[in-house]
Amino acid sequence: MESMMIYMPIAMAILGLIYMVIKQSWVMKQDAGDGKMKEISDHIYEGALAFLNAEYRLLSIFVFIVSALLAVVAYFVPTTSYLIVIAFICGAVFSAFAGNIGMKIATKTNVRTTQAARTSLPKALKISFGGGTVMGLGVAGLAVLGLTAFFIIFYKFVFMPDGWTNTDDMTLVLETLAGFSLGAESIALFARVGGGIYTKAADVGADLVGKVEAGIPEDDPRNPATIADNVGDNVGDVAGMGADLFGSYVATVLAAMVLGNYVIKDMGGAITDAFGGIGPILLPMSIAGAGIIISIIGTMLVKIKNNDAKEAQVMGALNIGNWTSIALVAAACYGLVTWMLPETMQMKFFGEGTIEISSMRVFFATLVGLFVGAVISSVTEYYTGLGKKPILNIVQQSSTGAGTNIIAGLATGMISTFPSVLLFAGAIWGSYALAGFYGVALAASAMMATTAMQLAIDAFGPISDNAGGIAEMSEQEPIVRERTDILDSVGNTTAATGKGFAIASAALTSLALFAAYVTFTGIDGINIFKAPVLAMLFVGGMVPVVFSALAMNAVGKAAMEMVEEVRRQFRDIPGIMEGTGKPEYDKCVAISTKASLKEMMLPGLLTIGFPLVIAFVPMIFGMKHLAIAEMLGGYMAGVTVSGVLWAIFQNNAGGAWDNAKKSFEAGVEINGEMTFKGSDAHKAAVTGDTVGDPFKDTSGPSMNILIKLTCLIGLVIAPILGGHADTGVSNIEEINIEKEMVVTDNIAEATITYSVIIDGKEVIKEEKFRGSKEDVDAKLKDFEASNNLANEENKKVIKKINVKKG
Amino acid sequence: MESMMIYMPIAMAILGLIYMVIKQSWVMKQDAGDGKMKEISDHIYEGALAFLNAEYRLLSIFVFIVSALLAVVAYFVPTTSYLIVIAFICGAVFSAFAGNIGMKIATKTNVRTTQAARTSLPKALKISFGGGTVMGLGVAGLAVLGLTAFFIIFYKFVFMPDGWTNTDDMTLVLETLAGFSLGAESIALFARVGGGIYTKAADVGADLVGKVEAGIPEDDPRNPATIADNVGDNVGDVAGMGADLFGSYVATVLAAMVLGNYVIKDMGGAITDAFGGIGPILLPMSIAGAGIIISIIGTMLVKIKNNDAKEAQVMGALNIGNWTSIALVAAACYGLVTWMLPETMQMKFFGEGTIEISSMRVFFATLVGLFVGAVISSVTEYYTGLGKKPILNIVQQSSTGAGTNIIAGLATGMISTFPSVLLFAGAIWGSYALAGFYGVALAASAMMATTAMQLAIDAFGPISDNAGGIAEMSEQEPIVRERTDILDSVGNTTAATGKGFAIASAALTSLALFAAYVTFTGIDGINIFKAPVLAMLFVGGMVPVVFSALAMNAVGKAAMEMVEEVRRQFRDIPGIMEGTGKPEYDKCVAISTKASLKEMMLPGLLTIGFPLVIAFVPMIFGMKHLAIAEMLGGYMAGVTVSGVLWAIFQNNAGGAWDNAKKSFEAGVEINGEMTFKGSDAHKAAVTGDTVGDPFKDTSGPSMNILIKLTCLIGLVIAPILGGHADTGVSNIEEINIEKEMVVTDNIAEATITYSVIIDGKEVIKEEKFRGSKEDVDAKLKDFEASNNLANEENKKVIKKINVKKG
Repeated sequence: MESMMIYMPIAMAILGLIYMVIKQSWVMKQDAGDGKMKEISDHIYEGALAFLNAEYRLLSIFVFIVSALLAVVAYFVPTTSYLIVIAFICGAVFSAFAGNIGMKIATKTNVRTTQAARTSLPKALKISFGGGTVMGLGVAGLAVLGLTAFFIIFYKFVFMPDGWTNTDDMTLVLETLAGFSLGAESIALFARVGGGIYTKAADVGADLVGKVEAGIPEDDPRNPATIADNVGDNVGDVAGMGADLFGSYVATVLAAMVLGNYVIKDMGGAITDAFGGIGPILLPMSIAGAGIIISIIGTMLVKIKNNDAKEAQVMGALNIGNWTSIALVAAACYGLVTWMLPETMQMKFFGEGTIEISSMRVFFATLVGLFVGAVISSVTEYYTGLGKKPILNIVQQSSTGAGTNIIAGLATGMISTFPSVLLFAGAIWGSYALAGFYGVALAASAMMATTAMQLAIDAFGPISDNAGGIAEMSEQEPIVRERTDILDSVGNTTAATGKGFAIASAALTSLALFAAYVTFTGIDGINIFKAPVLAMLFVGGMVPVVFSALAMNAVGKAAMEMVEEVRRQFRDIPGIMEGTGKPEYDKCVAISTKASLKEMMLPGLLTIGFPLVIAFVPMIFGMKHLAIAEMLGGYMAGVTVSGVLWAIFQNNAGGAWDNAKKSFEAGVEINGEMTFKGSDAHKAAVTGDTVGDPFKDTSGPSMNILIKLTCLIGLVIAPILGGHADTGVSNIEEINIEKEMVVTDNIAEATITYSVIIDGKEVIKEEKFRGSKEDVDAKLKDFEASNNLANEENKKVIKKINVKKG
Repeated sequence: MESMMIYMPIAMAILGLIYMVIKQSWVMKQDAGDGKMKEISDHIYEGALAFLNAEYRLLSIFVFIVSALLAVVAYFVPTTSYLIVIAFICGAVFSAFAGNIGMKIATKTNVRTTQAARTSLPKALKISFGGGTVMGLGVAGLAVLGLTAFFIIFYKFVFMPDGWTNTDDMTLVLETLAGFSLGAESIALFARVGGGIYTKAADVGADLVGKVEAGIPEDDPRNPATIADNVGDNVGDVAGMGADLFGSYVATVLAAMVLGNYVIKDMGGAITDAFGGIGPILLPMSIAGAGIIISIIGTMLVKIKNNDAKEAQVMGALNIGNWTSIALVAAACYGLVTWMLPETMQMKFFGEGTIEISSMRVFFATLVGLFVGAVISSVTEYYTGLGKKPILNIVQQSSTGAGTNIIAGLATGMISTFPSVLLFAGAIWGSYALAGFYGVALAASAMMATTAMQLAIDAFGPISDNAGGIAEMSEQEPIVRERTDILDSVGNTTAATGKGFAIASAALTSLALFAAYVTFTGIDGINIFKAPVLAMLFVGGMVPVVFSALAMNAVGKAAMEMVEEVRRQFRDIPGIMEGTGKPEYDKCVAISTKASLKEMMLPGLLTIGFPLVIAFVPMIFGMKHLAIAEMLGGYMAGVTVSGVLWAIFQNNAGGAWDNAKKSFEAGVEINGEMTFKGSDAHKAAVTGDTVGDPFKDTSGPSMNILIKLTCLIGLVIAPILGGHADTGVSNIEEINIEKEMVVTDNIAEATITYSVIIDGKEVIKEEKFRGSKEDVDAKLKDFEASNNLANEENKKVIKKINVKKG
């Protein structure tokens, strides 16, 4: 049983994918409605496909370039493997495929939901949530399948065919596996950032000309941009969110595996357990595997019976599924942790030495993760939820104009960082105190275990939104729109809380990657009292701010192109306003597609370029690799801290403005008077929403990708910066070190003579250091670290130390 | 000569103050105009005094509480001195006095400028700039006088009456001197944050009811809030900016002195030079002293001759003065550095050991500082200047409504962080590479040397603004307003660049303080790979965001009170709109005064409370002092990085919106059409300016205080966290240490037996450590560090080390 555990996650992933296929065919079998509805749905489907195809073309080029770069690195750096290229390509392909599944099912489910809504709300929920489930299981299943399959291949067949050797070899396995994660996250960059630009460009373009200039309602089929707008919902909220969480999922599990390997290292380089000595490495994979099955159970619980149900019941049904899966994950974590980990472990803590950690403490760390995942959603809901104090305040401030509405919205987003950051900081501290960075990574893994469920809840929103759009465009009876509106309204809430979950996952994932990075490079830590490291912390802090600005500007530019195209069609196509002329939907889709992919180049370049410049430019100038590694670590920390802040700020400000505007639909009380749509206060709120749109749908969610991709790039570069690359040799058999130190007064002098036996040949080297006793000590330590001698466990090391008092 | 150098800065400061008094009496002798003008000016003067008095009352309470706290600390922590209380109180009083001088002269100069503008523009410039000069020299003179006087007292009379003893005693001198800096920065909190709330509450209140509701022009005497508005210009831009730079000036010099002491420590604990062995400590003071005289020369060069001069000539005159003083500071730095520093110094660099640094490298570091001060102003001007690309873009985006105007403004502010942060990061790295953190601190000192000149340029703006207001209110001929408008327009540019200078000074000051903090606590560095440190980095990053939101909300609340009072007066005072009834100006002044001081409490509490909680709560739970010190360092770094980003973002976004709105006054071309005030685009731009007002005048500039005060509080707490406090004894005469270490396989065991002779009595203690060799080594090191044994230079230390291989 135990020895087969390595195949458990892959089996669960396949089970999940089988369930997905069954669910998919069930959804596809549902009635897709009559001619007009089907026609609109087909337009959306084709528009989505057009975007995907354009994206894939661009992606192929990108994947080709990065693969070539990785191959070059693998050629020059002996500690890296060519296989990282294969892993990278597969990571990209798997993530793209998962996005493809999600987009296709979402654009097929929307019309079926509309059709179901003509007769039954419970049926409509079942179908729309079924579509979400397909999406969720596709993402989670493929993520776990790909990651675990590659791990088995690398571990069992490439690097350790004869079973466990040592932690260094396992590091190679995991370094190579990082390619898969990098591939996945690269797709996320395209999907999330490109998708975010797409959806808002189409939305703003459709609104500005359609609603404002031509005075036709939202989702009106006469508006040429309306299909692009509906495609955008799928591109941004379905494919973008899916790729984001796919990336988080893979990266979190990978980081936890890296840190699991480090636990084994701390315990002397090898442990004996029933899992082939890799229990701590298998654990996060197993939690992910269990999470898939748990998510399936969770999705099965989501249903309502009453055809007259309101938002509260629908929300309640989702909550039952969600909370049940969180509780089941906690139970699974308890079982897996106590079963798979040694009862006590030794872990090294900086400045505190080695501490005995019981497996129960690791379990508590996973509870911390589940807690954060649950609480962050409540925090998000408080700051962005209808009827809550912050929203009422923004509504109130709208009465004195757009200016005060904007200030109130900005302030709400800014203040919302307070509980969120305290929560994250507490989680970092708590899970670290419980079980070191392994604890932090497992907290993230536990939180991510419900990814499939989260995505199902999340994707059902845009599907319902689309269903409502189709109902409107195909001129259904009002009851249909009412039913889809109930689903859509719940979807808006889950969209906001889903964003909270995505931020939390990105934050914890980045921290876990950050910890993995430090262990990969072999540096002691990241000391921000070194000025270059501090400088990079500043630079890192700046990047999310500039990235956000670029993303916002990109929306503006793309929207302008859309506006002009819509204006042109209104002008040039005869009878378009009377409904006799047919708008050229595909032209608008093409504009959004092209513009979004073009405009994401600059922010993408910023994300990928900065870490590369920081790593390689100082290298050209001969800076020490370990010093560079520390600088890059400072940069990563800067990006993460600032990125998390700006993500929370932008998402919550945007969500708050959105719901402040929506509050006017039902009417709000301002200074004792009921105020409705069309009032001056409502106009001010609409202005706020215009600002909030790119905040919450483009620049805000992009932060997740920025911070994860930054840390992943760091992780992939890590072996190049790591100590073992410095020696330039990979096959040291024996090292003999003689240290002699003479201390006189304040001055110490040390001579190191060392011989290294590489492939049977002996090489003798000598190094001298002079300075104060402390400095020489520091230099000696540095020398050992930079030659990877300090932690040499598997090679024969002979050291002689003479200290003479002069 | 050399031995008298310690008195040079104080002499220069007194010279500066004498010049200030002369200039002041010259300004006061100028014609203050006729009845109506004088009456208005008196109202402003009295309003300003009312604010100052209210502020002082609140301040007394605050100073009393903090003094009591400091006294308690001094009682319990033997390494701190009671004298810090005196230094703190004097720092607060000096800063408050400098603010008082500035406010008084500014409110007296305004009317004289108006009077002069009736006949001559050159005369008007001479008077308004004369007022600014008084302000600048008052601030710089008192800062240098106070700091150097206390240094001389502590050094010469208290801690080292018989000349240089050792760097530990000098650390005591400087730790006590930090009280002066803390006092000064506390006043800055009140002046900058309270002032920022005051000025915007009055401004928004006056505009919303006066301009928008009642339809009367700006600065109309019928508006009850107009006096408060004009007082606000002085409170925020004069007193606030003055206190901000006073604080920066003192803190920078202090930090450089701390790091100078550290240089001496690195060179073996004592150096021999002509300056009593404290050359590196005296240098920053001497640069500050020289800066005062240089600023006087600079201000003398600011004049125009042509009565028909335009903005360009006025700006040119200011530039001549400014650039000359920068050049002279560079020359002075060359002279002082080469004269006062040893030709070569040894400085410790983390991870690189001790490096020989020539004094020329220190000079180059000062050039880096001057470069940053000059370039940051250009960067600021590019992003906020009339006619520049970013402003034209915002103007363009105003044509599609307030929403796009806001997005464009936000994006401009965000993108402006790119060059600014790269500049700062480059400066940190560059000056550190040249001469370690001493270089960073001296770069800041050199930049701050022109403070008096910068303040003169800065304060002349609000004086001219006020002069214009008085011209309007007293119904002067249009030519008078035209002339003051020329000065005001230049003043707007210098206000923006002045803000850039203030941010740069705050950033460099904080870094220098941060470095001083590390040396005070005796920690190795700040390792963000330790989770608690990383958690605090997150928390620190969040604080500026929440602080900004609180400050923005405070403006909103205070403005609402003002709006209601103005409405009440318009309603209740008969004949007010016809000019026959007299508005109750003092009521509005009282509201602004009260509200601003009340609303600054919460952000103030946040600033002061967080570092105290981080330092003392873990202490209660028994956490190690050095671990806490590292956490607090992480918090400080988080606040600094995030604070600098938010300062740049908010100041530049606010400045950009302001000038985008102003662009409409002269007319702008949008899509080929000239557009003016009153257009829809202009209305959108006004909305942007409403958002920008608290950004640029309240929350943005407050960031400077937040980051400096945070680092200063850290510095004052440092001795409590520092190693020497841990032993609980202050009078160790002799320490005998016997270390024995037995190493078997992977396990090492160390026994430390040590006896400490305190006041003649011997105390014997024993400690055991067990674990891997590395861990035991780390623990031993930690033990030595936490008992301050590693750096014990002046006490007799006997160590025996036995390493047995088991």
